[in-house]
Amino acid sequence: MSIKEILKPSKILHLRSLLRIESNDDRFLGPGRIELLEKIIETGSISQAAKLMGMSYKKAWDLINSINKHTNTPIVMTQTGGERGGGTIVTEDGKQLIIAFKKLHNDFEIYLSEKLETFLQS
Amino acid sequence: MSIKEILKPSKILHLRSLLRIESNDDRFLGPGRIELLEKIIETGSISQAAKLMGMSYKKAWDLINSINKHTNTPIVMTQTGGERGGGTIVTEDGKQLIIAFKKLHNDFEIYLSEKLETFLQS
Repeated sequence: MSIKEILKPSKILHLRSLLRIESNDDRFLGPGRIELLEKIIETGSISQAAKLMGMSYKKAWDLINSINKHTNTPIVMTQTGGERGGGTIVTEDGKQLIIAFKKLHNDFEIYLSEKLETFLQS
Repeated sequence: MSIKEILKPSKILHLRSLLRIESNDDRFLGPGRIELLEKIIETGSISQAAKLMGMSYKKAWDLINSINKHTNTPIVMTQTGGERGGGTIVTEDGKQLIIAFKKLHNDFEIYLSEKLETFLQS
């Protein structure tokens, strides 16, 4: 008898998993931090990005500091003054990180749906 | 530049993810529930299994009821009286579920370590 036959037909199953990259002593990247970086790119502002995500400015900075701690050069940089009156940018390295994480996450979602089928047929 | 080069060499990364099977309206199986089922097999007792896991008897029953709700026949069954004075068993279907979940989880761990390498090289 397969797992599928053990289960009630009315129960539609899905595999749930949140993917996160951690280091020896801290979190590094996960879907929430990626979203924060994307919102900083969109708005050019940490406070606006934080507001869009319903988090405090302090919390956003904590997350950014935690990310920056892992990289040779900061991923998020604030510029003060200048023609545009400052603002915050995500560096090219940061954009590469976003792309790599989203690829990882996308592959992961596909893997999970395939694996669920294997599980049900087993 | 690869992701590996963006990162500080001192930071050893790992992918963290907890795998869980959910249904439309509830959780179904995850590492904690699998451990509970295994401890019930070992001890033949829900109260002893709960104690080994540091959870209340009520909590253990809640988890068991939640699992049983998903299957055509209960996975955990209590027997009262009889020669051995009752006890709790995990059915053959339940044992098949444990094996299938552990296979899934093991494959998943291998996948994660492979994917981390891909991520770092990207």
